[in-house]
Amino acid sequence: MKAFVTGGAGFIGSTLVDRLLARGDEVVAYDNLSTGRREFLRDAAANPRFALIEGDVLDGAAMTAAMRGADLVCHLAANADVRFGTDHPDRDLQQNTVATFRVLEAMRENNVKRIVFSSTGSIYGEATVFPTPEDAPFPVQTSLYGASKLSCEGMISAYCEGFGFSAWIFRFVSILGERYTHGHVFDFYKRLRDDPRTLQVLGNGKQRKSYLYVQDCIDAIFTAIERSPGKPSILNLGTDEYCTVDNSIGWITGALGVAPQITYTGGERGWIGDSPFIFLDCARMRGLGWAPKLTIEQGILRTLGYLRDNPWVLEARS
Amino acid sequence: MKAFVTGGAGFIGSTLVDRLLARGDEVVAYDNLSTGRREFLRDAAANPRFALIEGDVLDGAAMTAAMRGADLVCHLAANADVRFGTDHPDRDLQQNTVATFRVLEAMRENNVKRIVFSSTGSIYGEATVFPTPEDAPFPVQTSLYGASKLSCEGMISAYCEGFGFSAWIFRFVSILGERYTHGHVFDFYKRLRDDPRTLQVLGNGKQRKSYLYVQDCIDAIFTAIERSPGKPSILNLGTDEYCTVDNSIGWITGALGVAPQITYTGGERGWIGDSPFIFLDCARMRGLGWAPKLTIEQGILRTLGYLRDNPWVLEARS
Repeated sequence: MKAFVTGGAGFIGSTLVDRLLARGDEVVAYDNLSTGRREFLRDAAANPRFALIEGDVLDGAAMTAAMRGADLVCHLAANADVRFGTDHPDRDLQQNTVATFRVLEAMRENNVKRIVFSSTGSIYGEATVFPTPEDAPFPVQTSLYGASKLSCEGMISAYCEGFGFSAWIFRFVSILGERYTHGHVFDFYKRLRDDPRTLQVLGNGKQRKSYLYVQDCIDAIFTAIERSPGKPSILNLGTDEYCTVDNSIGWITGALGVAPQITYTGGERGWIGDSPFIFLDCARMRGLGWAPKLTIEQGILRTLGYLRDNPWVLEARS
Repeated sequence: MKAFVTGGAGFIGSTLVDRLLARGDEVVAYDNLSTGRREFLRDAAANPRFALIEGDVLDGAAMTAAMRGADLVCHLAANADVRFGTDHPDRDLQQNTVATFRVLEAMRENNVKRIVFSSTGSIYGEATVFPTPEDAPFPVQTSLYGASKLSCEGMISAYCEGFGFSAWIFRFVSILGERYTHGHVFDFYKRLRDDPRTLQVLGNGKQRKSYLYVQDCIDAIFTAIERSPGKPSILNLGTDEYCTVDNSIGWITGALGVAPQITYTGGERGWIGDSPFIFLDCARMRGLGWAPKLTIEQGILRTLGYLRDNPWVLEARS
């Protein structure tokens, strides 16, 4: 099989690339390297079944050419910056909604009909049912990021109905692990490295969040493609647990052996559109025979180990 | 109050313009006249509190200038052509999703924070609960039209959260009445006028649909703005009944005194993405004290009367 991975030089994308290559697939990574890292593809680059094509998902013509001959598109390229949506409202629209449309049209042009898409638990807004199932009460959006991912889900589903596409849409919790380059573990570790005596936390520290280890995430993608029909398959993806921000800080400071004075900016939400409680019901995905191997705590500690071993990740642009 | 109405020369838009003027508001209609009709604004044009500004909702700069001084934006401009989404997949993205983003940004620029938005019952895809409430199980999109309107809803809701907007989002069933220029009554009447002996029907005629009379629709908009907080207010809008396509044909042929031979293209759906059953639970809207005055049958007959009295509507581009 030949897979085309947008965002293939990113955290999750490059991990997926390595796993696809490991199972014998041909892989084209398509990435504009704006946040992706060439370093993540060092192993892949040595593989004759791999090619990196530098290009932008908004450049439909270039992407259409790069996609030629693919059997499966894994569309992971996105603006994943949930927090700053209101600083530049057009970014989610362009990099998520419009870009996904370009991907779908490039697929039509190339007669590629199978797509894996990274959506997000953020589309549940402030959910009212916990754990939140895929068919939860129709939510109200609270972030431009969530709204844009929902828009992508809608277009992809309409392409399934209208053009006979198959789609596997994953509503991720936050993903952690090796090559992790942004998010709370990254932020906390970087700041504690600079100053282990203090740590400021957005919100009141009581926000409840879920995390999933990146290799467990890739396991789930492979399982779903194989065992669910994709017409479309919409699947929550997380662990069957959650932790508070304070829990996470405890694990991080414990592992680092530091005892910072912690201050809180206050409020139930860390930022505009932040959801104070994310906990997804993953029974649908588990029903396919998948289960995560790492707990949230193990995932956080693994991530921390990676960041300690790879200080260059913290230095580079993020 | 000064209202800015996009699509103000259209069917629903021009009716809203007249009603706003009748209650004493200032009104700017903004329309590119691609499907809107200058004739619909003949009465409005004689009113000193009215101005028509010709312009496109995708032209952010022109729209921002035209919106200056408005207190309320009623965003009705849209690609309302549900059936042909797969013929030109970019149209819903551009004219609905991107256009709505331009409206929201023009509002930010002008510090206008109140928006009325025409969404659609199509966002429920193929609903599983009837009548379908606003918090029905999270639906899967089946049409690019529905997906684009859902995208608009999401952005508008995120602007409520992120920028303190107030929004009244109405999920319309099909609207009928004077100035109606497209839809099944229009199609059937036009074809029966050309040839009263035969009528071809898309699907099997058993599709169950809901309709609402346009003046009842405007009543609901006014009621909701006055009585619900808009943070955001998401409201289904329809009658508490439905009819089959065959029912509707019976009323239309009866009123016209014709007895065509009816043939069916077959299948439960009239076209790709058509929902075989649309029936919305409007308890939320009714709870604000609103009720429709016309039944579906009355609305269809009123529409038919309008088309018979205004043959020019059928001749013009549609």
